[in-house]
Amino acid sequence: MKLDTLYSDLTIKTGAKMALVVLDGLGDLATKAQGEVTPLEAAKTPNLDALVAEGCAQGRMIPVAPGITPGSGPGHLALFGYDPLEFQVGRGVIEALGLGFSLKAGDVAIRANFCTLNAEGIVTDRRAGRIPTETCQRLCALLASKIKKLGTTEVHIVPGKEHRFVIVLRGAGLEGPLTDTDPNREGLPISTAQPTDPKSAKQKKVAKLIADLYKTALPLLAKEKAANGFLLRGIAHQPDIPTFEERYQLKAACLAVYPMYKGLAQLVGMTKIEGPTTIKEQFERYAAEYGNYDFFFIHFKYTDKYGEDGNFEAKKQAIEEFDAALPILLGKRPDVLAITGDHSTPCVVKGHSWHPQPVLLHSKFSGSDKLDRFTETGANLGSLGVFEAKYLIRLMQANARMFDKFGA
Amino acid sequence: MKLDTLYSDLTIKTGAKMALVVLDGLGDLATKAQGEVTPLEAAKTPNLDALVAEGCAQGRMIPVAPGITPGSGPGHLALFGYDPLEFQVGRGVIEALGLGFSLKAGDVAIRANFCTLNAEGIVTDRRAGRIPTETCQRLCALLASKIKKLGTTEVHIVPGKEHRFVIVLRGAGLEGPLTDTDPNREGLPISTAQPTDPKSAKQKKVAKLIADLYKTALPLLAKEKAANGFLLRGIAHQPDIPTFEERYQLKAACLAVYPMYKGLAQLVGMTKIEGPTTIKEQFERYAAEYGNYDFFFIHFKYTDKYGEDGNFEAKKQAIEEFDAALPILLGKRPDVLAITGDHSTPCVVKGHSWHPQPVLLHSKFSGSDKLDRFTETGANLGSLGVFEAKYLIRLMQANARMFDKFGA
Repeated sequence: MKLDTLYSDLTIKTGAKMALVVLDGLGDLATKAQGEVTPLEAAKTPNLDALVAEGCAQGRMIPVAPGITPGSGPGHLALFGYDPLEFQVGRGVIEALGLGFSLKAGDVAIRANFCTLNAEGIVTDRRAGRIPTETCQRLCALLASKIKKLGTTEVHIVPGKEHRFVIVLRGAGLEGPLTDTDPNREGLPISTAQPTDPKSAKQKKVAKLIADLYKTALPLLAKEKAANGFLLRGIAHQPDIPTFEERYQLKAACLAVYPMYKGLAQLVGMTKIEGPTTIKEQFERYAAEYGNYDFFFIHFKYTDKYGEDGNFEAKKQAIEEFDAALPILLGKRPDVLAITGDHSTPCVVKGHSWHPQPVLLHSKFSGSDKLDRFTETGANLGSLGVFEAKYLIRLMQANARMFDKFGA
Repeated sequence: MKLDTLYSDLTIKTGAKMALVVLDGLGDLATKAQGEVTPLEAAKTPNLDALVAEGCAQGRMIPVAPGITPGSGPGHLALFGYDPLEFQVGRGVIEALGLGFSLKAGDVAIRANFCTLNAEGIVTDRRAGRIPTETCQRLCALLASKIKKLGTTEVHIVPGKEHRFVIVLRGAGLEGPLTDTDPNREGLPISTAQPTDPKSAKQKKVAKLIADLYKTALPLLAKEKAANGFLLRGIAHQPDIPTFEERYQLKAACLAVYPMYKGLAQLVGMTKIEGPTTIKEQFERYAAEYGNYDFFFIHFKYTDKYGEDGNFEAKKQAIEEFDAALPILLGKRPDVLAITGDHSTPCVVKGHSWHPQPVLLHSKFSGSDKLDRFTETGANLGSLGVFEAKYLIRLMQANARMFDKFGA
């Protein structure tokens, strides 16, 4: 029996309220240079401390697998309970989500960037001299105004930063992945996008659409000096992912500020709640929407952002900002509350990492690990141990008494 | 997607230097009779303590699976990152490696031991009265001088201790495993080696070779009183294992003293560095060879040996001998250092056991678990948690920044 099937079979609706607060990139490393503490350890967190004193379970979560550093996509899919090895989301899809484009199942999304071609069609600059974002916006608007459809397939062109943009093909019978048209180095012509499964008629259709796209678009760019061509990567369709509600019997809402996380939440069928721009506002909105949903995914970006900058002090302050707002959430206390990260972003690494992130779970049934605070070092000693992040949602469901007994 | 495929896809070469120091059978148990400490806890380890103070991650590793006691083969394969359930190595292969015989892919290796037969060909002593090693050497030399080939297949006969020896068949089109010729109790005749897969022509060929071997060899032993027959077990070919370099993009060297560990390292394609006979000399040689390899496997036998003897004091002293030599290794510090065992060999068990062995990981990115020492009890509190030994190499690679980010 598949474990997911067992979980589904045992699931019962209880009407319990659950909140998953993701402090992006929360986990960190204690180093000598930092005085052997992490930002979470250094931060003053009176509200979190009081919650821990009430009784919490702690542990650490492996985002994907030992040693694997996840991007935001796999990191969040795991938090949402979807095995990131089973549910892979293409780079194009993630990029489109990151630009705030609302994808539909079956859409093929493509990372694109402008490039420079010489008279012979050879790529001389794969990034078109990093044209300004305004130029990218102008060129995307030009292409979008002239290419709305290819046959019956809709074409959406969404500008990003500098030379980057996204193309979405929307219509019946499309499928990825296809090989890149980016030759990966200068001095070569644009490659042809090829189906990765030669038997797939849908991939062949996408290959034909991409060939047509080049035929139509390149003449429109011919007069541009720097950006007279474009390269495509990560050509993939939005995978068919069972929704959060189908999988967990939970009506879920997303309270995120950045488009990427809204997009990832939408990918699993969560409702996007728009408006709040600070963690305080997010918690206030959570309290206001409390009656309307079973599950709230609340995303806080700044722990990751300052970890990426290697800015210990700012990461610490971001945690303190979260802590100061926490009483608003606790004022309308969910039955089950999890506070964690989607991965670690240690200041010393200045980027995402593989180190298990700390997790805190609070409910009437979480018990107490009798720890003073919620920290990386404390979490090492917690009753949850070290486990794969994809199981967090199952622990939350269990704490919400959403699982019947297995067997007599 | 298979996890190993993901690891391979994400691997990038960095030129980082890595060392895996295996204190064989390191893990132990604290018992009342031992004053409730383990040899590692009782040992004076100032150099290890200083390393821990600099910042290390600790944890415990399950050698194969909960409750499974590994032999040296599975224990080391796991440390080398090869799932011991997926990559099974026959007993004959392990015995041949242990005797220092250099196997090639496709060789069929067989554990053999001399036995006593009566006039009717019935086994009356399965161990030939445990003949002295010298007799075994004489008889093996006799057989080897008379049986160099069977058809086009080379036959190699290698003496072991007392009644034990190894036979290696080398040639095209051979494959194991076959059933044993050892009837497993006295009072029965020698069994016939049978293919385990009746469809395998290669196994049938080996069965025929073994029948021919008996026909040729038994008359040569007819005048021996005790050792006038021999029994075969663990008839298996050297499996086709992807090399360490293929799997991890690491050029690896082995610094071991005992043939078994050199053999296991060779099995995965490591280069054998010969010469050193003490841990001090091994570390000196590591320092000398630092520039020539990416990965060093350094094996220390005595922790296991004294654990097998149940000699707490000697095991403790062996750890102190290692600690005294440690500064030589640290003088040419690898970017990533792991110190662990291949399994536990608790003094109270007087043998290998299933208890998770402690592991220490040190790198710029290992963080600090803020523990005072490296011990079994301390490792229980570490950030690495309890994990399967096969993931250690993946954590080492991650600490060497050898993995690209997974997904966007």
